[in-house]
Amino acid sequence: MTRAPSTPPTPAFPHRHLLGIEGLSPQEILALLDKADEEVLVSRQVEKKKNVLRGRTQINLFFEASTRTQSSFEIAGKRLGADVMNMSVASSSVKKGETLIDTAATLNAMRPDILVVRHHAAGAVHLLARKVSCSVINAGDGAHEHPTQALLDALTIRRHKGTIEGLTVAICGDIVHSRVARSNILLLNALGARVKLVGPSTLMPAGVDRLGVETFTDMRVGIAGADIVMMLRLQRERMNGSFVPSVREYFHYWGLDQEKLDHAAPDALVMHPGPMNRGVEIDPEVADGPQSLIAEQVEMGVAVRMAVLEALAEHLPNF
Amino acid sequence: MTRAPSTPPTPAFPHRHLLGIEGLSPQEILALLDKADEEVLVSRQVEKKKNVLRGRTQINLFFEASTRTQSSFEIAGKRLGADVMNMSVASSSVKKGETLIDTAATLNAMRPDILVVRHHAAGAVHLLARKVSCSVINAGDGAHEHPTQALLDALTIRRHKGTIEGLTVAICGDIVHSRVARSNILLLNALGARVKLVGPSTLMPAGVDRLGVETFTDMRVGIAGADIVMMLRLQRERMNGSFVPSVREYFHYWGLDQEKLDHAAPDALVMHPGPMNRGVEIDPEVADGPQSLIAEQVEMGVAVRMAVLEALAEHLPNF
Amino acid sequence: MTRAPSTPPTPAFPHRHLLGIEGLSPQEILALLDKADEEVLVSRQVEKKKNVLRGRTQINLFFEASTRTQSSFEIAGKRLGADVMNMSVASSSVKKGETLIDTAATLNAMRPDILVVRHHAAGAVHLLARKVSCSVINAGDGAHEHPTQALLDALTIRRHKGTIEGLTVAICGDIVHSRVARSNILLLNALGARVKLVGPSTLMPAGVDRLGVETFTDMRVGIAGADIVMMLRLQRERMNGSFVPSVREYFHYWGLDQEKLDHAAPDALVMHPGPMNRGVEIDPEVADGPQSLIAEQVEMGVAVRMAVLEALAEHLPNF
Repeated sequence: MTRAPSTPPTPAFPHRHLLGIEGLSPQEILALLDKADEEVLVSRQVEKKKNVLRGRTQINLFFEASTRTQSSFEIAGKRLGADVMNMSVASSSVKKGETLIDTAATLNAMRPDILVVRHHAAGAVHLLARKVSCSVINAGDGAHEHPTQALLDALTIRRHKGTIEGLTVAICGDIVHSRVARSNILLLNALGARVKLVGPSTLMPAGVDRLGVETFTDMRVGIAGADIVMMLRLQRERMNGSFVPSVREYFHYWGLDQEKLDHAAPDALVMHPGPMNRGVEIDPEVADGPQSLIAEQVEMGVAVRMAVLEALAEHLPNF
Repeated sequence: MTRAPSTPPTPAFPHRHLLGIEGLSPQEILALLDKADEEVLVSRQVEKKKNVLRGRTQINLFFEASTRTQSSFEIAGKRLGADVMNMSVASSSVKKGETLIDTAATLNAMRPDILVVRHHAAGAVHLLARKVSCSVINAGDGAHEHPTQALLDALTIRRHKGTIEGLTVAICGDIVHSRVARSNILLLNALGARVKLVGPSTLMPAGVDRLGVETFTDMRVGIAGADIVMMLRLQRERMNGSFVPSVREYFHYWGLDQEKLDHAAPDALVMHPGPMNRGVEIDPEVADGPQSLIAEQVEMGVAVRMAVLEALAEHLPNF
Repeated sequence: MTRAPSTPPTPAFPHRHLLGIEGLSPQEILALLDKADEEVLVSRQVEKKKNVLRGRTQINLFFEASTRTQSSFEIAGKRLGADVMNMSVASSSVKKGETLIDTAATLNAMRPDILVVRHHAAGAVHLLARKVSCSVINAGDGAHEHPTQALLDALTIRRHKGTIEGLTVAICGDIVHSRVARSNILLLNALGARVKLVGPSTLMPAGVDRLGVETFTDMRVGIAGADIVMMLRLQRERMNGSFVPSVREYFHYWGLDQEKLDHAAPDALVMHPGPMNRGVEIDPEVADGPQSLIAEQVEMGVAVRMAVLEALAEHLPNF
């Protein structure tokens, strides 16, 4: 008897880094979501532990403060058995791009397997990825991309609606400052959803039409018939005085309350990446209501990050 | 041969949370102390490791800075094999009670098994416990309760005196601001000790008589014959200018020096929850002297926290 | 048949603490370097894990902020299987030496196996080591010693040059504020290297001649023929206005650029303990050039710390 010569299996995720949704094929996105569905079960066990990353070193390098995302990556790594190290770098001590690279080179020399990086400047994570030999996951870079947020949103949607394809998703609020919006637009487009952007024209990025989305300034018109209403946080800390209506006025026009939500599809679901400004972009009754998926998004966040960590580990020979 | 139908054993600690000493029976307290006696041995081994919490996730959520208590819980969890995550939340970023709940809901969605919470507002930890599905341990809430401190104090006393029942314990100093005092009064009363409170009348809480304790303003009278002299930290950071005598004056009247200590029982022991203001509420010679149990209290702190973590884990089906 | 009575093997590293290079014999230094060579291989495996410190508790107690050294110790401990706890103490909250001791006593009572300590005051780590029952590693105390930095520098050099003995090493720049320089002088002397110190006279410590080194103020003369050119960080934060030439002037006279480096031996290698002030003490082209060992020093740092942690563990009966 003879055996056919074995060929190594093609990895489901053939990238060394996860820097953005841009560049991922629909198949790669779906493979990550499938894996994340399995990871959900790990976190629902009494013993939430898988040892696939035992002996691997994961460094969370955050140049911007983050409670939610950093915690989610830390828990994900630990549940997979990795050694996880947090490094929060006050932006004041890293004033020059050069120093960002020195910091990354220093950490890289400690031979981590993965760097999870958040930075306030769009593109900083790509730059850093070119300078290191380990894998890099973008945990948010300026207003550019936040790919694991888009993946967790997609996972949450798919678990409720069965598929992304053919859904209408309204992304509402402070679009221009939102890496969450940008990554979601790319992912939802890739998987065949119809995306509508809703918000004040001052918070709508220029040239957004090229991304194949429709834009609306009237909330009720924009979310009409939507299957998913995805609210964004109003990022007042990124605004330079140019805009802004009062909070009261903002809520009146673009805050999601039940009355506005009733213009969406009857079984519409509500999402928010957190942290919420209750009473600004969302009414507490809607946030805590039966159509809200907000807490579930957080749970899916851990699962998606586990899936990404594991996918990168399977791919890389030396990871 | 037949076997009697098996009934599940009654857990020694039938509560989902540990929010305070209030509500614990003497039997439950004693069971925790017995378990803590076993945990002491774990930390005295070369390999300080028990894997009973392997795969469990413990989050230390501290809204107030703490060196000692947070470290103690972190070491306790790690020695039991848990994945431990620290989250220090600057109080400035959590201004509204609503946000406290959102933070807790977010962490809860990551499916931790246990949240260890310290908060500057009395009652905040109870509120939070009602909103989450995991177990909650109160690591100090305002001037309300700090149950693991009272348990570690009791463990330390019992290991030296053999029992709590029948002892006279003088709790001295800044009673009104002290959650440590409150939890200790409840625990010592439950186990049959006689409690005397000693301090300036301005630092004595109103209505404290209802707790079944005696109060004294004269230190020498108050600690006369006491088996245990428990000093409290003068919490000047919680005082709003209303009180305070000078530090020099405070030490003169209520600071524990050897002369005052000699009014207690000949074999009296001295305790302090730390961190100490040396020369304010306690004379360094007494703090470091042969009657002091202060370092041992810290060791017992790790053991008590291990016992509480393990007791909650044994009780909860899904923990 | 009889067996000779067994005698316990002499440990290669017969000290309880590592407080400085001072006091180590050449044999002890070489034994640590040999062990570190083995540890390098651990960090180059896919599974970077050795369980020799399983169940041991390592506390990193840093009274000065540090990105690089603290991370290196954290990764080293975790790769050896230890439970690692970080404790960063803002120097503001520790104003009195007394409180340093209370903090150390508190942590010691939690029964760690090892305390890794950095403190801004020379001698603080020695003081602390006398007050605790666990092992202490000096991770930098004021301008006094930083022994693991000297060990990692020696390891890096030895891996490239085969030996330390007989080499000429020029240590350049801000000597007076540098614990790195001090530990390196002691180690390089012990292993038979010739050490030359180069820098402005205002940054040269008084009485340095007694250490058996030569001093130079002219950079080109000082590094002439050197096998190793070791640059130091200009520690402007430690200067009290007395000195300093402008950064431009400093770079002109003492900054390492290729032209100056060409005065060293043709196969000279360049080192820097980091973090670098690019354009101040070193030209970026040299820092990133083919003669630079700077990234490799960081990798060796993890290996040396693993070696020290393991050496202390092997030595101590109760560690």
